[in-house]
Amino acid sequence: MAVSSRYLDAAVRELSRLPGIGPKSASRVAFHLLKMSPSDVRRLAETIVDLKEKISTCPVCGGISDGGNCSICEDPDRERKVLCVVEEQKDLLTIEKTGVFRGRYHVLGGVISPLDGVGPEDLSFGKLVERLRAGGILEILVAFNPTVEGDATALYLSRLVKESGVKVMRMARGLPVGAEIEYADSATLATSISDRVEIGQ
Amino acid sequence: MAVSSRYLDAAVRELSRLPGIGPKSASRVAFHLLKMSPSDVRRLAETIVDLKEKISTCPVCGGISDGGNCSICEDPDRERKVLCVVEEQKDLLTIEKTGVFRGRYHVLGGVISPLDGVGPEDLSFGKLVERLRAGGILEILVAFNPTVEGDATALYLSRLVKESGVKVMRMARGLPVGAEIEYADSATLATSISDRVEIGQ
Repeated sequence: MAVSSRYLDAAVRELSRLPGIGPKSASRVAFHLLKMSPSDVRRLAETIVDLKEKISTCPVCGGISDGGNCSICEDPDRERKVLCVVEEQKDLLTIEKTGVFRGRYHVLGGVISPLDGVGPEDLSFGKLVERLRAGGILEILVAFNPTVEGDATALYLSRLVKESGVKVMRMARGLPVGAEIEYADSATLATSISDRVEIGQ
Repeated sequence: MAVSSRYLDAAVRELSRLPGIGPKSASRVAFHLLKMSPSDVRRLAETIVDLKEKISTCPVCGGISDGGNCSICEDPDRERKVLCVVEEQKDLLTIEKTGVFRGRYHVLGGVISPLDGVGPEDLSFGKLVERLRAGGILEILVAFNPTVEGDATALYLSRLVKESGVKVMRMARGLPVGAEIEYADSATLATSISDRVEIGQ
């Protein structure tokens, strides 16, 4: 059927290209936009363009910054001896939100994945080695997604930095807090058994 | 925790004000935007602004148009004798997508809802009566949401147009196609029994 507006069609088409937004949600968002005030819509559009055009990458860790080094790399209170290596910038923010990690970060830009044509040379291993050479880092906490590629990349990383004497750790795996054993998958359950921790430690 | 970018924070804040997009989805969309090409991001922002600023309302039916009468009102092949009255512009598009209705539309702009301070004078009943007076319309199909307010508004409408002799119909209610009786709510089930239709009709 010929529906009535090419502007609406264009907006639905563009919105439904975003992750997690199908044609129905896109249409819902579009009609919501039509009901918003023109200034609110304009502000939304501006923040989207600003996000893309004004955000830069921290030259030290590869995290996001508003120009120059990021606030974490510039923070004198963050521990220099522990470095958390993550796949993507968003993982940095997710870990940061827990408030538990007090060290600094290194964003690798992905994981080694031969099937996707991603090799070590496509990732920021070179910069990581440079940071280790500069000294002061005693421990690396690998925080990759627990996938085959993540594990392979962690292994590659641990071998790469072996000579430097830096300790390479990974995040614990096991039952999510609040989970029920009855519904846990067997791989997770197996890890939670083999990685068991003494009570009271 | 101080996270690293006010542009990111602003984008997440604005995006999470949209319907169906919580803070997590907003963050996911924001990181997706960061990975899109600048021209794609700019086009998205432009379509959003265009949507708000360039779409207008059809002066005849109240549906959306790109200026002047909408394509449905202008289509000489649409039946003039049946008018489908809907609450909102989006309902018009949803019904239009079925391809079953060949008449024209009238967008009321909502339903009567004293609790929300919406009375008949806030809706386009006046324009509806004008259209009926102009002649040619023999039947009104009321397509409001099956709510208390929708039903009350349908009753108001049927009384309002009673003198004109126009037949006022509503959409059928009952089990959705593909539903299972076991899981149907009893109000729907009751309607599907009282509105039963002879097989083979």
